[in-house]
Amino acid sequence: MPSPTLISLDAMGGDHGPSVVVPGIRDYIKRHGDSGVRFLLHGDEAAIRAQIARCHIADGVCEVRHTDKVVAMDEKPAQAMRRGKGSSLWNAIEAVKTGEAQGVVSAGNTGALMAISKLLLRMSAHGLERPAIVASWPTLKGVTAVLDVGANVESDAEQLVEFAIMGEAFHQAVHGVAKPTVGILNVGSEEMKGHEAVREAAAILRDGGLGLSYHGFVEGDDIAKGTVDVVVTDGFTGNIALKTAEGVARFISALLKEALTSSLPAQAGALLAMPALKRMRQKIDPSAINGGPLLGLNGIVVKSHGGADAKGYGNAIRIAVDLARSDYLTKVGANLERLTAVLEQPASPVTGEATESAQ
Amino acid sequence: MPSPTLISLDAMGGDHGPSVVVPGIRDYIKRHGDSGVRFLLHGDEAAIRAQIARCHIADGVCEVRHTDKVVAMDEKPAQAMRRGKGSSLWNAIEAVKTGEAQGVVSAGNTGALMAISKLLLRMSAHGLERPAIVASWPTLKGVTAVLDVGANVESDAEQLVEFAIMGEAFHQAVHGVAKPTVGILNVGSEEMKGHEAVREAAAILRDGGLGLSYHGFVEGDDIAKGTVDVVVTDGFTGNIALKTAEGVARFISALLKEALTSSLPAQAGALLAMPALKRMRQKIDPSAINGGPLLGLNGIVVKSHGGADAKGYGNAIRIAVDLARSDYLTKVGANLERLTAVLEQPASPVTGEATESAQ
Repeated sequence: MPSPTLISLDAMGGDHGPSVVVPGIRDYIKRHGDSGVRFLLHGDEAAIRAQIARCHIADGVCEVRHTDKVVAMDEKPAQAMRRGKGSSLWNAIEAVKTGEAQGVVSAGNTGALMAISKLLLRMSAHGLERPAIVASWPTLKGVTAVLDVGANVESDAEQLVEFAIMGEAFHQAVHGVAKPTVGILNVGSEEMKGHEAVREAAAILRDGGLGLSYHGFVEGDDIAKGTVDVVVTDGFTGNIALKTAEGVARFISALLKEALTSSLPAQAGALLAMPALKRMRQKIDPSAINGGPLLGLNGIVVKSHGGADAKGYGNAIRIAVDLARSDYLTKVGANLERLTAVLEQPASPVTGEATESAQ
Repeated sequence: MPSPTLISLDAMGGDHGPSVVVPGIRDYIKRHGDSGVRFLLHGDEAAIRAQIARCHIADGVCEVRHTDKVVAMDEKPAQAMRRGKGSSLWNAIEAVKTGEAQGVVSAGNTGALMAISKLLLRMSAHGLERPAIVASWPTLKGVTAVLDVGANVESDAEQLVEFAIMGEAFHQAVHGVAKPTVGILNVGSEEMKGHEAVREAAAILRDGGLGLSYHGFVEGDDIAKGTVDVVVTDGFTGNIALKTAEGVARFISALLKEALTSSLPAQAGALLAMPALKRMRQKIDPSAINGGPLLGLNGIVVKSHGGADAKGYGNAIRIAVDLARSDYLTKVGANLERLTAVLEQPASPVTGEATESAQ
């Protein structure tokens, strides 16, 4: 019998702490029938035990490590690094560092999670200032991974290629696509479009022998079309694209709600169409895509949304388990080494200065 | 009696040429009851006359200037500049340069329109490489102007402030808002967020004494919320945000269509709700927001979408007329001069190097 996968959980993180984390475990096990996973829960033992008592399915698979200390949701990352030692967040990550657990999930303070993960696990992607965040973006063809959506505000060609390497391996591990396609987000699909960083990254992905299935440049509307499996962009553009999309989705949803309550016939129509509209809603259900991995670290770290429900938390667990059971880390490590070799070639297309001039 | 406003039109531009341009004139006059406007149509006289014969309302307000020459939709800007002299596009812009017309509308080749406009009219915003394009973005509160959405791929602090100056004056002239609010698009609303260019631009807008109603940083989801009247961003991010939003809108629309045809009850419901859904559609009707002004030139130039219908073209005419009748050009000129003075101060917050390091 293979040894079970052990996932470390920051049970105090997020808006709801153990009252979502433990039901999240139950949701994950029920949904995936997974009997080969165990959990290490860090936080207030009494509060966690009270939740486990209400979720029998979680009873046999959880080990609790007590700590009183919690990183607050609004604590600054620098402060959390100085004072966070011994907190549920810190201890949850440390279990991955020591090799006890194969992955960690936290719904806590994102900045603190990134800072402490970087401190304890160290970056494997040396071009990055901090871990990259992946968004799972619902599309007409399924889900596209978009990264970075927030951490690295300015990204040169090397960083963009690192995103491509990590995004590809992530998509493969979590969505089971044998050879995910990768595109770089740009203002046009022609080769001469965009600034230096995207053009240099494109040259490396095309000619660098990294073996990725590079599609070329994609535009903003290609994301929702599902043109490629992985969309690579700098953290500034990615963050703005993601939040702009969320804003548009909320705007249309508000207009739709207004329309469907604006008259009696519209209300009657909405009632008739309700089951179909509910099925549609499931396709863009945030909890079905919750769980943003922090990529570029020597270890599996998954961020759950602070306000996620049990189903959403269960999905974040699924992502951590899928990554932990895959060859994600070794594959990324090998490709990052290959990238270093490409960048060190004297005739490298990359000058190391990137993000300068433009077309 | 005041002399009429004269708008110059590239009658051959766009996918449909005079068969949309002339009905567009009719649509504009009918919709706005404007008796104080005249049009100068450049292009194939016979084709234009044939359309005017079918639009009686346009008959008395149009003057036709014949030319056989047309800039093709796929012609490269450099080629169009070299060989475009005497074309309908060139002549339409030239009428603004000579002062005969107060504005020009074209649905033709965007690259050629930008290049020839810049050549003939020259830039008034000296920090810009090329004119900025404004998108009129439907929001929960009305319409927000977002710029630049495509022309200037890398924008330093000076360019961002120029966008703010022009966007504010544009919004005032076209939407009649006395004091439009301006925000800079960023990855967070706190002052230390983002890269050097956005933070320097924010400092100038806050402390530079330009007199704009500066709101601060806004995030991607603030666009559709209508948090501010004018959203300023570099052309790379703006273009990607706009196309991403279009992609999301199309994605949701496709899901909705699928849902409302998925079962008999859903189809019956859709039928009942149809009038309400149609009213909703009007709020995000592309032709109601068609017409993207090219800002930063010594003259009024408005780009209509190549595939726009008569209603859309009529809206592009409205934007040109509103800008031509306002003090847009003098106001922008005065504010750009003020900006030059701010940038020349020895203690200026702007180093002139911008877009370097980051947080």
